[in-house]
Amino acid sequence: MYRSHTCGELRYSHINQTVTLAGWVQKIRDKGFMIWIDLRDRYGITQLILDEERTPKAVFELAKTLGREFVIQVQGTVIERESKNKNIPTGDIEIMVSGLTVLNSAALPPFTIEDQTDGGEDLRMKYRYLDIRRNPVKDKLVFRHRVAMEVRNYLSQQGFIEVETPYLIKSTPEGARDFVVPSRMNEGQFYALPQSPQTFKQLLMVGGMDRYFQIVKCFRDEDLRADRQPEFTQVDCEMTFVDQEDILQVFEALTTHLLKTVKNIEVGSFPRMSYAEAMQKYGNDKPDIRFGMEFGELNAVAKGKGFNVFDAQELIVGIAVPGAAEYTRKQIDALIDWVKRPQIGANGLVWVKCNPDGSFKSSVDKFYSSGDLSAWAEATGAGPGDLMLVMAGDAHKTRTQLSALRMEMGERLGLRKPDEFAPLWVVDFPLLEWDEETQRYHAMHHPFTAPKPEDIPLLDTDPGKARANAYDLVLNGNEIGGGSIRIHDSALQGKMFGLLGFTEEQAEAQFGFLMNAFRYGAPPHAGIAFGFDRLVAILGGQESIRDFIAFPKNNSGRDVMINAPAPIDDEQLEELGLEIKP
Amino acid sequence: MYRSHTCGELRYSHINQTVTLAGWVQKIRDKGFMIWIDLRDRYGITQLILDEERTPKAVFELAKTLGREFVIQVQGTVIERESKNKNIPTGDIEIMVSGLTVLNSAALPPFTIEDQTDGGEDLRMKYRYLDIRRNPVKDKLVFRHRVAMEVRNYLSQQGFIEVETPYLIKSTPEGARDFVVPSRMNEGQFYALPQSPQTFKQLLMVGGMDRYFQIVKCFRDEDLRADRQPEFTQVDCEMTFVDQEDILQVFEALTTHLLKTVKNIEVGSFPRMSYAEAMQKYGNDKPDIRFGMEFGELNAVAKGKGFNVFDAQELIVGIAVPGAAEYTRKQIDALIDWVKRPQIGANGLVWVKCNPDGSFKSSVDKFYSSGDLSAWAEATGAGPGDLMLVMAGDAHKTRTQLSALRMEMGERLGLRKPDEFAPLWVVDFPLLEWDEETQRYHAMHHPFTAPKPEDIPLLDTDPGKARANAYDLVLNGNEIGGGSIRIHDSALQGKMFGLLGFTEEQAEAQFGFLMNAFRYGAPPHAGIAFGFDRLVAILGGQESIRDFIAFPKNNSGRDVMINAPAPIDDEQLEELGLEIKP
Repeated sequence: MYRSHTCGELRYSHINQTVTLAGWVQKIRDKGFMIWIDLRDRYGITQLILDEERTPKAVFELAKTLGREFVIQVQGTVIERESKNKNIPTGDIEIMVSGLTVLNSAALPPFTIEDQTDGGEDLRMKYRYLDIRRNPVKDKLVFRHRVAMEVRNYLSQQGFIEVETPYLIKSTPEGARDFVVPSRMNEGQFYALPQSPQTFKQLLMVGGMDRYFQIVKCFRDEDLRADRQPEFTQVDCEMTFVDQEDILQVFEALTTHLLKTVKNIEVGSFPRMSYAEAMQKYGNDKPDIRFGMEFGELNAVAKGKGFNVFDAQELIVGIAVPGAAEYTRKQIDALIDWVKRPQIGANGLVWVKCNPDGSFKSSVDKFYSSGDLSAWAEATGAGPGDLMLVMAGDAHKTRTQLSALRMEMGERLGLRKPDEFAPLWVVDFPLLEWDEETQRYHAMHHPFTAPKPEDIPLLDTDPGKARANAYDLVLNGNEIGGGSIRIHDSALQGKMFGLLGFTEEQAEAQFGFLMNAFRYGAPPHAGIAFGFDRLVAILGGQESIRDFIAFPKNNSGRDVMINAPAPIDDEQLEELGLEIKP
Repeated sequence: MYRSHTCGELRYSHINQTVTLAGWVQKIRDKGFMIWIDLRDRYGITQLILDEERTPKAVFELAKTLGREFVIQVQGTVIERESKNKNIPTGDIEIMVSGLTVLNSAALPPFTIEDQTDGGEDLRMKYRYLDIRRNPVKDKLVFRHRVAMEVRNYLSQQGFIEVETPYLIKSTPEGARDFVVPSRMNEGQFYALPQSPQTFKQLLMVGGMDRYFQIVKCFRDEDLRADRQPEFTQVDCEMTFVDQEDILQVFEALTTHLLKTVKNIEVGSFPRMSYAEAMQKYGNDKPDIRFGMEFGELNAVAKGKGFNVFDAQELIVGIAVPGAAEYTRKQIDALIDWVKRPQIGANGLVWVKCNPDGSFKSSVDKFYSSGDLSAWAEATGAGPGDLMLVMAGDAHKTRTQLSALRMEMGERLGLRKPDEFAPLWVVDFPLLEWDEETQRYHAMHHPFTAPKPEDIPLLDTDPGKARANAYDLVLNGNEIGGGSIRIHDSALQGKMFGLLGFTEEQAEAQFGFLMNAFRYGAPPHAGIAFGFDRLVAILGGQESIRDFIAFPKNNSGRDVMINAPAPIDDEQLEELGLEIKP
């Protein structure tokens, strides 16, 4: 054993004890006749002291050769510090060093190993092993572990069994693109890495496992957007003999438990909202309800008043930004520019200041009377001091644009507080989405989602209108989980594949094993999956997942530390029976 | 909620309660006027009763249409059974059924869903979801979950952090063959699936994570031997600032904890044995020490007595099989045939019966006197009633052959008791193995294993003699874990790569990131990895891992249930820039 204590352990009560510590040199202050060293490990920092008089000469000289990030072992006596440091738990003591061993030297690190580092993102990723030494990264990884342990212990106590499903499975054209793995033993054939263990967890339910979960890596070969990873972690769950209410209760309880144990936050029962309501009130199926600014629809009060720009539109809709009536013209113009950026793509923005004296000042004063604007204020809930922002156009597009603006205003006004948690269930999603490009329906959730029983007849008459028994768990404007009641009837599953454009042969080739399984006594079952990277990040009060992943990939799917992917030997390709296209 | 109770829950105390159960029809006994049904779920079996008099007619008629494995929901009243079944926890009661819903019908299953099934291995694998309904399979999966939870909670309490390392990494020619994953975004380049998270866990130690673990899938594209899987699960661990003694203590404590919590077995401190001693005493680096039959070397007492067959051999070595002096000539001939099979490959076997009266009867009576054989008995520890079995030849080969015979005799004599647990540390492995085929050294453990400090000079003079700071944990004749002190010095690691035949350029291309990391303050570190499938199987008292894996692959690496691997679309290949060789 290289140490008697860690660097985060020693206190006033240890004074006069002889100890051995090991760790990294965080900082050296060399006053010539006296040297202080901050020694760091995962558990904290302990101050070492050496002086010309009391430290053996050889040790003192050796200490003069140390540099940042050297790995050392020291023996010494715990003494009381003259000037105590109240900011760290070991701040009452220091170690009078009597022995010193250099366990390893260190080249000068490419960036400072401090909470606030001078290293840019790319450099920190290349030297991720140094980045992990920094508290902000290390603490996030430790936090992730804590959340995973809480999830596992909670679900296990609820009778869920963690079952490992296979990673080498079969490619499915439905959904996102698969990563594939050529099989050497079966030449010309490929495994696929799972996008999720969906079909396997359903087979476990057919197999009577009753309650299943797994914290599991999943893979999607997508063009990466910011903050997407080709491999990501899911908390995957499935239950038998349950209906939607059971699922919502079990996983609401899990989420409540996590908020309590890892954040010490108590939340009440989660509100529920239909997809239709979420779209109408927030323009978004994952609304952040930590703040208001709900949409007010203005068609009834804004059309037919001679403002042609509005009259022709499908939807006129606005929000009331609290306390923003004082915005200057310049600030408002900046907002207009903001919504016109291609990322948002709006044509413009109508604004109405609700002055503290009850009067209005707007960009459309020519067309609307004070009484008209008063009706707008009523619809959006604007009061004196607020700023109404109004958009118009195609209903779906306009809602999406106004939703982006609402989130931006929430951000700017500091209403998206990282230490506040507002969970929400969104339910009653549409079963299918029409895709213009491929001219066919896609499953909004996935092809195994059951329609609401009362909407099953719609599958024959108007499939786009059918609602699914599907639900999302939204936390602070992020979808952290989503699931559905599954189809457990072979015929209904066949019909669903038909609606999604599969021929019978294709359905049989891809999912024959599942439909076959449904013939041998498949029970009613349902499930949910949480995006674990996202869940942990949000619980950690952050929007970016990257620092909650030990070794993330960049936006080109590369690991810049190990430099992967990389070419492989010709021999390896040969064995796999593959050629790279010229 | 489809049920008020599970099928394993109801007891005498529930009598007169109205309940709702859901599950699978295990068995129907139809006496015409009365029907009994065994209803099954994960938690147990509950008997249902319906009779012409008390059951509503429609319900009674519906029950007549049920078949095995139908999924049903029943309402009824808990009543006392007339003839109680003491074999099941619900055996005191039955349900007088008043309502019945068929949730799903079931085709006749291809094999019986009973503890003793009539289904062969292949059929059970194809319909694995039905196989999992059987207690012997289901119980093993639940047991695996329990062991995993114990491992995680124990290590977490010891300050270990579970960190998820990436699955899409870089291919390394050293070691077994990698599965590779073509990258669409980086055409012509490939990821590899990890054979273990070895380098990443070492980088986590360089990153100061101090104590790491992970229960993680690993991948090896090997020609499959029986009971090998292309994907397997490892309990992967690494620690900083520790020496071998620390590692042995921490993971001995983990193993002791598992034996106590999941098997309720107390074991004392684990014996330790050097690799050299294990080879000499058991001919095997993972000896099963649940039984004796230690090797007795006979060179000194068997050579030079005129038996030419022995005189020329490098090693003459025997075991004493307890109580086997009564073996008939036919039984002994069968043993001789057994060792001559190509799997063992021995030339023959010399046998000596130690008769109860102290006399000997052997196949070499012509050459050896009673006094000679008495010396043999002393060397092998044979007493009256035992049978000595003796082999001779090249030392290493003969030890391996005799080891196989020893294990076989242990098996035949019932000495390998599944409910007995004999852990053992094997230490001081050789660092390198000479490979005749490639005419170079291979790492016996892996290239990151540190030599014993006192053997470092041997790397320059006689590398094959250098011992490693490596250790295996052996349980009942199986290696369940193995690990080593790692090299943390960039120069020594470079030298090691050189010994393994890497050019500097190759070492840099493959492991440059690791050697670079070692330049920035790498601490002393060490680790171990457990084969989790094997560990669980052995704790479960079985030698085969297959039933402890939910969806195993067959010996051709195929999942016969989902039929993977499979051809993929030309479009997918096109996107990856790959062609299948004609």
